[in-house]
Amino acid sequence: MSDLPSTVRIMEVGPRDGLQIEPKVLDVADKLKLIDALMAAKIVEIEVGSFVNPKAVPQMASTAELVAALPEPASATRFRALWLNARGLDQAIASGRVHVDGKLTLTASETFSRRNTNRGIEETLAQMPDWIARYRVAGIEPNTLGLMAVFGCNYEGEIPQERVLRLIERTVQILADHDAQLRHVSLADTMGWANPLQIKRMIGSLRERWPKMDVKLHLHDTRGAAIANAVAAMELGVAEFDAAIGGLGGCPFADHKGAAGNVCTEDLAFVCEEMGIATGLNIAALIEAARLAETLLGHPLPGKVMKGGLLNRPAVSF
Amino acid sequence: MSDLPSTVRIMEVGPRDGLQIEPKVLDVADKLKLIDALMAAKIVEIEVGSFVNPKAVPQMASTAELVAALPEPASATRFRALWLNARGLDQAIASGRVHVDGKLTLTASETFSRRNTNRGIEETLAQMPDWIARYRVAGIEPNTLGLMAVFGCNYEGEIPQERVLRLIERTVQILADHDAQLRHVSLADTMGWANPLQIKRMIGSLRERWPKMDVKLHLHDTRGAAIANAVAAMELGVAEFDAAIGGLGGCPFADHKGAAGNVCTEDLAFVCEEMGIATGLNIAALIEAARLAETLLGHPLPGKVMKGGLLNRPAVSF
Repeated sequence: MSDLPSTVRIMEVGPRDGLQIEPKVLDVADKLKLIDALMAAKIVEIEVGSFVNPKAVPQMASTAELVAALPEPASATRFRALWLNARGLDQAIASGRVHVDGKLTLTASETFSRRNTNRGIEETLAQMPDWIARYRVAGIEPNTLGLMAVFGCNYEGEIPQERVLRLIERTVQILADHDAQLRHVSLADTMGWANPLQIKRMIGSLRERWPKMDVKLHLHDTRGAAIANAVAAMELGVAEFDAAIGGLGGCPFADHKGAAGNVCTEDLAFVCEEMGIATGLNIAALIEAARLAETLLGHPLPGKVMKGGLLNRPAVSF
Repeated sequence: MSDLPSTVRIMEVGPRDGLQIEPKVLDVADKLKLIDALMAAKIVEIEVGSFVNPKAVPQMASTAELVAALPEPASATRFRALWLNARGLDQAIASGRVHVDGKLTLTASETFSRRNTNRGIEETLAQMPDWIARYRVAGIEPNTLGLMAVFGCNYEGEIPQERVLRLIERTVQILADHDAQLRHVSLADTMGWANPLQIKRMIGSLRERWPKMDVKLHLHDTRGAAIANAVAAMELGVAEFDAAIGGLGGCPFADHKGAAGNVCTEDLAFVCEEMGIATGLNIAALIEAARLAETLLGHPLPGKVMKGGLLNRPAVSF
């Protein structure tokens, strides 16, 4: 396990990816309570919502209002939001309160791309130059790719690794054609298909081809392998993960309602700290935030550490 | 991941370790239904109960009756039971229906040893010659050690790896003094303390010192790391695991009621199969058994695959 990173950075996506599948729509005040609790646990990046069609995702309808009401961030806290079209990006920039990076998004499954974004893969690639131009106008360097459904798709089945590499290669090329460079890739296991061996093969191939590229993972725990997948990635040096408090979430457009959601923030932070990998997070406070999320939503969440408790290490050994 | 085994053998402990913490005591007929469902899923080893003090573990009071009523096993199915004293062993042997191997048990935590077995570590070691003699009388070769609380203890905190190695060394010596050989070691993370790095260090040390010894793991998912721990062990060639259907279980003598239980059988089998490691199990039938367990107990279980569903791989790719 020699490539284990010394620190891991966890971006909290509970208020966005975590809440969007929830039938109970939280109001702005409740979302702010949850964000406060996350900040108290020393989370330094929080995706607070998405600037998307409110009819498609009612839970996110209040994002503009929420963003306007965000607390002045503690020096280390960065708020983020998601967008899928130019209007969403404009709203994010106009808010002045969320950090906007030059992220292009793409989906490795044609069917899921159409269902989730109303555009196929080729059309999405063809629009990348427009996105690059938009970011440039706003003074933002386009250097990031978010790739969804990388490890498998409920509609299409397995996603060949070669396709994923080809899509990254095409993005690298499009950016290069515009004098930009792809520096960060976020791979999303949107529908919870990944296994640790597949993770290692994928990350290994990326490292071989683009040794300097930062790799981030967005994992779902649909079939219980998310922590194992995160550990597999850490063994190859991956040090950035999205996660949701209490294991909130899931994807409303995927085909398995009731399934487990994102990899659980406090469970991931716990296993990191136990392996000697610093997260900077206060896990006891994360557990409080997870309990608050349960209270706000009115149902139990799948997180394990919040039920199993922290490890009790008595000062005096027997 | 070059040491991943090609096959993994999962022993189902749901009817024993899985049920013992449950407040609702299942009757013999219900336990038989669960065992039938497990056999239908091609489970080849099932720990069906324990011959222990019925007052201490009411859920196990019917073990003798259950064992007498077990179905004629399919050729490949082996039933097992647990015992902690000579009387329990006698009952297991007398039943004629459970496979009895020459297993010595020991606990790496002094406090937990006393709480769980009413004996300290030294006393347990001192009794090993009696156990060896008992097994020999029954024609059973003593060659197995079950070591509990190996990775940490809620009462004592961290368990030093050196202590674990010393306890195994002492068992090796006691067996050698009686012309017997320790061939199998089962390491139990009884209270869910292990992390993947610790697992690799422990297994690595065992392999270094006793290269030919079989290592089996008994993992609990108290803090969500059980699948990651199993994968870490598999990467070092470990190919035998205990697991409980639906993630049943937990330990009634430990200090965290309501926590998650054993590593979940179908989630473990799923991740194995996805990594190309054959389990011989029918995962769809395991999911049925997990649902049956939920119905019999009247509450949801923590397993993920039973909610997330199997992967849908369409015959025609898009």
